[in-house]
Amino acid sequence: MIYITRKAHFNAAHRLHNPSKTDQWNRETYGKCSHPNWHGHNYILEVVVAGEPDPETGFVIDLGKLYKIVEQEIIKPCDHKNLNLDVPFLKDVIPTTENLVKTFYYQLKNPVEKAAAKGSILYSLRLFETERNFAEYCPNARI
Amino acid sequence: MIYITRKAHFNAAHRLHNPSKTDQWNRETYGKCSHPNWHGHNYILEVVVAGEPDPETGFVIDLGKLYKIVEQEIIKPCDHKNLNLDVPFLKDVIPTTENLVKTFYYQLKNPVEKAAAKGSILYSLRLFETERNFAEYCPNARI
Amino acid sequence: MIYITRKAHFNAAHRLHNPSKTDQWNRETYGKCSHPNWHGHNYILEVVVAGEPDPETGFVIDLGKLYKIVEQEIIKPCDHKNLNLDVPFLKDVIPTTENLVKTFYYQLKNPVEKAAAKGSILYSLRLFETERNFAEYCPNARI
Amino acid sequence: MIYITRKAHFNAAHRLHNPSKTDQWNRETYGKCSHPNWHGHNYILEVVVAGEPDPETGFVIDLGKLYKIVEQEIIKPCDHKNLNLDVPFLKDVIPTTENLVKTFYYQLKNPVEKAAAKGSILYSLRLFETERNFAEYCPNARI
Amino acid sequence: MIYITRKAHFNAAHRLHNPSKTDQWNRETYGKCSHPNWHGHNYILEVVVAGEPDPETGFVIDLGKLYKIVEQEIIKPCDHKNLNLDVPFLKDVIPTTENLVKTFYYQLKNPVEKAAAKGSILYSLRLFETERNFAEYCPNARI
Amino acid sequence: MIYITRKAHFNAAHRLHNPSKTDQWNRETYGKCSHPNWHGHNYILEVVVAGEPDPETGFVIDLGKLYKIVEQEIIKPCDHKNLNLDVPFLKDVIPTTENLVKTFYYQLKNPVEKAAAKGSILYSLRLFETERNFAEYCPNARI
Repeated sequence: MIYITRKAHFNAAHRLHNPSKTDQWNRETYGKCSHPNWHGHNYILEVVVAGEPDPETGFVIDLGKLYKIVEQEIIKPCDHKNLNLDVPFLKDVIPTTENLVKTFYYQLKNPVEKAAAKGSILYSLRLFETERNFAEYCPNARI
Repeated sequence: MIYITRKAHFNAAHRLHNPSKTDQWNRETYGKCSHPNWHGHNYILEVVVAGEPDPETGFVIDLGKLYKIVEQEIIKPCDHKNLNLDVPFLKDVIPTTENLVKTFYYQLKNPVEKAAAKGSILYSLRLFETERNFAEYCPNARI
Repeated sequence: MIYITRKAHFNAAHRLHNPSKTDQWNRETYGKCSHPNWHGHNYILEVVVAGEPDPETGFVIDLGKLYKIVEQEIIKPCDHKNLNLDVPFLKDVIPTTENLVKTFYYQLKNPVEKAAAKGSILYSLRLFETERNFAEYCPNARI
Repeated sequence: MIYITRKAHFNAAHRLHNPSKTDQWNRETYGKCSHPNWHGHNYILEVVVAGEPDPETGFVIDLGKLYKIVEQEIIKPCDHKNLNLDVPFLKDVIPTTENLVKTFYYQLKNPVEKAAAKGSILYSLRLFETERNFAEYCPNARI
Repeated sequence: MIYITRKAHFNAAHRLHNPSKTDQWNRETYGKCSHPNWHGHNYILEVVVAGEPDPETGFVIDLGKLYKIVEQEIIKPCDHKNLNLDVPFLKDVIPTTENLVKTFYYQLKNPVEKAAAKGSILYSLRLFETERNFAEYCPNARI
Repeated sequence: MIYITRKAHFNAAHRLHNPSKTDQWNRETYGKCSHPNWHGHNYILEVVVAGEPDPETGFVIDLGKLYKIVEQEIIKPCDHKNLNLDVPFLKDVIPTTENLVKTFYYQLKNPVEKAAAKGSILYSLRLFETERNFAEYCPNARI
């Protein structure tokens, strides 16, 4: 089993805010991350596909095609956008790194697995909010 | 002459927008960088002080003191903030990397030079908007 | 299951030396790493917590709180210190990267799991001795 | 169980080309990566050995010895070489990152496991073709 | 004066070979870098433009436009190519990092300065052959 | 004029301590950096040589030869050593980054300039104590 990874980047604004809670709760829970005028990040996304290389091509997935899917499904809707206001599939998602990486996974799962070699899966996603903080979603145990 | 550098980080939202121009001009000039709902970056700032090391300490400047000044003057007002709305000394500054780095330089010049070894100067500032784009302001010679 | 990671840094001196062995054994086993006058490293520690995000906060763990624990338990006792001489919980530990990362794990396990969302665990630790050498301790199979 | 990693580097030329297929198939499948006059990369290889540290040395494996094996088995035959033409153990391997990382694994498995602490295994290999693309081969589930 | 930088990447094959010299001279001078079957690199190019920001836009140069020029003049002819065989403007240039960075500079100078704010210049180019080796060409002063 | 740079690494212990001063002065001046049991760093050294490429080789300096000089003059005496105790040419030098980079420069100047193309000079040295702190010595102009 080979795990092949492609990195992608996008820049976005966000704030951490649970609209069902009071402003005080949000300030106490999220501190400066809940600043009402937003802040932002250079996000780095690592997309990991697992499978056996196709014997004819030697590819688990054509990384050019993988990047096009990531661009279409994640980069285009999120890059230079506000993650709380602008992205339909993030509606009602508090944009913590944990929630983003899980939501991105299910946004990518079907189109990626359709493009990969037979039997391959979207294994995991890693999302870096900063160089120091990142989250990984990996619903598949190491196979 | 020694050039000593300290890096610092902050995360902020911004948009590129010249309020004296039409929306159409802003869209044509800045493209996705003018998105009205903001986007953001993990900024990296490199502060360069030039001078002769003090013979007793071996320091051009105590980097701990330098960082405290950078924290007070730049990080505290800018981190987890909106550069167009929240920072008094950036009022009326279109927050391009070029304009930010120059404005930050003059924000830091006096306090840094007061803390540095005699005869030292704030030589230059480099500001990374992303890992791929950065600007340097260096009013002391070169060309 | 989400894996959330926070990086931290510290600078320390150490040497590889097994005091129950002869000097010759130590020189032959550890080479220049056993130099009696010490050498040192900029260590990077990555702390990985696994769990389900709390539905109210979207956090597996508040990374600010996680960093405070890492600072208290690891950074404060180890930063700008000698790992062979100065750190109580490293007494009798030969400070190879392997031994350090395992010892740090058990130093962090209880306070981190107390601060994380219910059901979360301290999943693993990665410790970089240099950019080229690192060790990971992961007592939990991928869950 | 500790996972200890050593990075290594080599620079090589290659092209993606399946000699049993037509030129047209190769162009359509591999695009610019099949350019007949070759292109190349700065490859980074991460070698991960898993085991219990030897109680006398604190090492899962002496990283100096590990690097010597990697140098002998991978770097010397591949560095400043053409991966399609010059490397005996890559004959008949289409040099995609997926195929390279798997082939390198079996090239290293025996000599690495002979040099490691008793019961240790060559756990996995990660190969970076660029900073953005990498593949991991991990025939052992997390143990 | 502001110095604004944009990074770009390309992957290429090359060898160091002076065709007016004997094979023996080439082997003795260039060692493994003269390997006849080529080797290759992930090159990183940093393009530095110096000038005063345009007061209306805050730009020394629109980095999107700058990247398009770099793509047209350098990336498209060099990426996934052989620098000794495939690039018209490198004909008769021995592709050392020194020679490449100087040749790229004059390839970019006119189109970049036409696109930049009035009075701006293409200040310098830095070319990384590996993470450890890089060359800068800066015909505008310094020493 | 081309500026060609080679990076090198070494790991060392040190402390900041002026032996002509009291312990109290040292503690107040250097804080945790004066810890008596030492601490340490992974130092990165960038060596910059400036000159015109030799027309026959295309080299300002053969980077293999440059690295051998750096290894002989700096890496061998400093790597896995204590900079306060073990390095003859650092005797009586307080090992701040500023003092180290200047001392290293004069250690390298003669052998490097002898090995470089005619008319070339050792232009500058940059020394990184951590990823966040570095010093450059550049006795050839700028301000």
